[in-house]
Amino acid sequence: MCVTCSSTFKKTSHYKSGFNSLHSLTAIICFLSPPFMAGGLSHFHGRPSFLTISRSNPSRPSLCHRPITINMTQTQTQSQTQSYWTSIEADIAAHLKRAIPIRPPVSVFEPMHYLTFAAPRITASALCIAACELVGGDRDQAMAAASALHLMHAAAYTHEHLPLTDRIRPKPAIHHAYSPNVELLTGDGIIPFGLELLAKSIVKNGSNSDRILRVIVEITRAVGSEGVVDGQYKEFLCSQSKGEESWNLGDIEYVCKKKEGGLYACGAACGAILGGGSEEEVQKLRKYGLYVGMIEGMLYGVGRNKKGMEGEVEKLRGLATKELEIFNGRKIEKICSLVQAGLCSV
Amino acid sequence: MCVTCSSTFKKTSHYKSGFNSLHSLTAIICFLSPPFMAGGLSHFHGRPSFLTISRSNPSRPSLCHRPITINMTQTQTQSQTQSYWTSIEADIAAHLKRAIPIRPPVSVFEPMHYLTFAAPRITASALCIAACELVGGDRDQAMAAASALHLMHAAAYTHEHLPLTDRIRPKPAIHHAYSPNVELLTGDGIIPFGLELLAKSIVKNGSNSDRILRVIVEITRAVGSEGVVDGQYKEFLCSQSKGEESWNLGDIEYVCKKKEGGLYACGAACGAILGGGSEEEVQKLRKYGLYVGMIEGMLYGVGRNKKGMEGEVEKLRGLATKELEIFNGRKIEKICSLVQAGLCSV
Repeated sequence: MCVTCSSTFKKTSHYKSGFNSLHSLTAIICFLSPPFMAGGLSHFHGRPSFLTISRSNPSRPSLCHRPITINMTQTQTQSQTQSYWTSIEADIAAHLKRAIPIRPPVSVFEPMHYLTFAAPRITASALCIAACELVGGDRDQAMAAASALHLMHAAAYTHEHLPLTDRIRPKPAIHHAYSPNVELLTGDGIIPFGLELLAKSIVKNGSNSDRILRVIVEITRAVGSEGVVDGQYKEFLCSQSKGEESWNLGDIEYVCKKKEGGLYACGAACGAILGGGSEEEVQKLRKYGLYVGMIEGMLYGVGRNKKGMEGEVEKLRGLATKELEIFNGRKIEKICSLVQAGLCSV
Repeated sequence: MCVTCSSTFKKTSHYKSGFNSLHSLTAIICFLSPPFMAGGLSHFHGRPSFLTISRSNPSRPSLCHRPITINMTQTQTQSQTQSYWTSIEADIAAHLKRAIPIRPPVSVFEPMHYLTFAAPRITASALCIAACELVGGDRDQAMAAASALHLMHAAAYTHEHLPLTDRIRPKPAIHHAYSPNVELLTGDGIIPFGLELLAKSIVKNGSNSDRILRVIVEITRAVGSEGVVDGQYKEFLCSQSKGEESWNLGDIEYVCKKKEGGLYACGAACGAILGGGSEEEVQKLRKYGLYVGMIEGMLYGVGRNKKGMEGEVEKLRGLATKELEIFNGRKIEKICSLVQAGLCSV
């Protein structure tokens, strides 16, 4: 339940909480406003959420050995952070809406439009933009990649919820606006569309073509057989053989690393590549994204409601923050807010 | 039944007649040897086949008003054509085998390998290579695109045969080596893998990056929501509402144009782009591919066993041949053999 506006986010209505929902932006504001502002926002599982949890042992030092210091008041930081992520989300949604108008054949583009905007948002897309800006790039340079990431996720999410005959323990029920066949085909159409969008984002003089090609390789790897698909497969195997309760930590880590971790790592790396970051910056942001994504998966993905997550998340927060040390001196409080709201106001 | 070697190609064993089958190359030779040599070879539906059919009215002139003349004996042409297509198919298969070794995670790559090679071959891939060579390019320049086209087709074929709850008139049964969930996820992995393969085919100095990006746009469009997916959706709607017998010609043409037509057009255009063809050559070969693919769809795809196809195919043969006129003077007998074996030996 959203404490401020009293709206309820039901588990069975994931499809209603994506870009399409007028509720979403209100909800972001609700959650990010003090006293609810504790970290960043994340939407992988259908609603604005937080990556920061209360420490099990507040006296334990962070794994970040050289805390990053930023001279801003907490209120200033929170306010700027809030408007920053909100503006990114709005820009990505606007870009996608322009890219996927409902046009002929309507029987194909209407479900494509619907499933794209109904799929829960992921912060990996926003992280792509933030990483681009952090290394000195313009938002526009990463917009196609950020949109492509959302499209890849929307396709995976749609296929993940298809009613197949061997899914004996299906995912939580969601509202299906279309028949299984249409949802299958629409997912199949969304994947190449996302990559087409990216390939077409080459600038007129072609000067960014090598970067675009590199980003295509990054995204296809992250969503393919060594990435999200591998994680989905492992999740399927574990949930079919073990049920929800008896996953071990190794399984959870594996799935979180391949699914959310891989997608967030990819988003951050792609943003840095497109923004013209150095190789060191690309790799640091990739790792930062990996840890942020894994936290997301542990709190709201496959690790949700499972024991022992708090300690793991705490470790990952420290590791993530450490990756941002090389950017010290730049305005990192926004990107940093995804895991370390506390540190950002030190 | 293969008349020469007496092997039978069963409708229910499509998966056994792809690249993996040792029978395939033998079968190609069987079919291409006189007196069976009547056209080119095609594998869209799981077995070597012909695109040329006997004319309903042999006295009617071809739609090609200026017949292309090639001074070769029929035997020479047939022999060279046979070895040409066989060598292309073998090269594509070898390229794919190197690209998809069975490696960890085996649970993911084993089905990927299997479904890639078990899917029936399509001539669109070979046409991509042939178009590249026709405009003066090297085979290697188009190999990644040709392989990507096969991978896109393999993914579409796999998903097309998934047992979904709303497929009340499913496609003819095929052997499923894996569970529906694994086949769904594998298809999802194959699509980005094909595009990754293509994006990585950039040469060291990056001089082909603009061409590669253009080809990525071509392929993603051809297989996406305005291409193969649109055709699959129309086919699904028609087969569910009308049954196999009551399709009208417009429906058949639409599906053939979007599925086989679009894929073959894309293959030919991509080959020409990568081989450095002029814009006119790219567009002529695109149209040639469109007609060849539509013939394929009418004879062996959705038009199979439906009335009125012979006349349409005859028209398309004429149109296809006409598109090759601008190449007169070059060695077009090989690519031309896909529709016009007769003309090639005039």
